[in-house]
Amino acid sequence: MDMHPKARELLTGPNIGNLGYYGLDGHPRVLPVWFNLAGDDIEIASPPDAYKCRALRRDPRAVLTVSTPQAPYHVVSVSGRVDIEVLPEPRRIEYVSDLAHRYLGAEGGDAYLAKWIRGGHPGPGDLLRLPIERLRYTDVSGG
Amino acid sequence: MDMHPKARELLTGPNIGNLGYYGLDGHPRVLPVWFNLAGDDIEIASPPDAYKCRALRRDPRAVLTVSTPQAPYHVVSVSGRVDIEVLPEPRRIEYVSDLAHRYLGAEGGDAYLAKWIRGGHPGPGDLLRLPIERLRYTDVSGG
Repeated sequence: MDMHPKARELLTGPNIGNLGYYGLDGHPRVLPVWFNLAGDDIEIASPPDAYKCRALRRDPRAVLTVSTPQAPYHVVSVSGRVDIEVLPEPRRIEYVSDLAHRYLGAEGGDAYLAKWIRGGHPGPGDLLRLPIERLRYTDVSGG
Repeated sequence: MDMHPKARELLTGPNIGNLGYYGLDGHPRVLPVWFNLAGDDIEIASPPDAYKCRALRRDPRAVLTVSTPQAPYHVVSVSGRVDIEVLPEPRRIEYVSDLAHRYLGAEGGDAYLAKWIRGGHPGPGDLLRLPIERLRYTDVSGG
C-alpha cells in the first residue's frame, strides 16, 4: 500500500495505537493497544473473548489512530472492518513474545512475558485483523 | 469527582487525549486532541464547525482516552455526551493561548500561537464540553 513515509513510520513503530470501536452499549470506546502492521493489515493480539472482541464481533467497524505523543504532531488513522481469528497457543506465545520485545525491549519484554505466560500455558488467544480500507494521514506539526 | 490519583494525573497532563466518536458515515473515529479538565468536564477547543463538531452535534456520544505513551502503562477513559458551545474570539484566544503554553511550553507555545492567530483575528471557535458520566481507570503496568 502506498502511504506517506511518516505514516508508515508511525505504523511500524513501536507506537501505541488507539483502537476505536462501538461498545456493546453503543457508546464509542477507545483502547490503547500494541499492534503490528502486516502487509496492508493491522494486527492486534488479545486475550480470548475480551470485551473488545465481543463488541467487534457484533459491529466490526473500527479505526486505529497513531500519533506522535509530543509536538511536532503527526497523525495517521486507518479504518476498516475487523476480522477475529483464534491464535492457537504456540502461535500466540510467539506472537506476543515478538510484540513484547518490540515494545518493551529485551529485558522489559522478558519481564512482561514471565508474568504473562502463566507457567508456560497462556492458552489460545484472539487475533484482531483490521484490513486498511482507508488511511488518513495528517501533518499537524505546523512545520 | 473522586478518582484514582493516577487517573487525575493523566487528565491534568499535559497529555494527548484520544477522542472517540462516530463519524457522519457511522464509522468510529479517533482523534488526538489537547484537552483541559475543568471540574468534572473535559474541554476541547476546536475551529468552528469542524468535522468532529458536526459529527458530535448529530451523535454526542464520545469518549476520551488518555494513557502513558510508554510502559508502565496506565489508562483512563472518560465517557459522556458532548455539548458544543461557541467560544467568542477573545475567550478563544485566551483559551488556546493557555492550552498552547501548557502543551508546548513558553517558547513552543508562542511559536504555535504566532501562526494560529492569523494576524490577531482567528475568529470565534467551538468548545466541546464532555461531562464525565463514566470514568474507567486501568493500571496495566503489571506493577
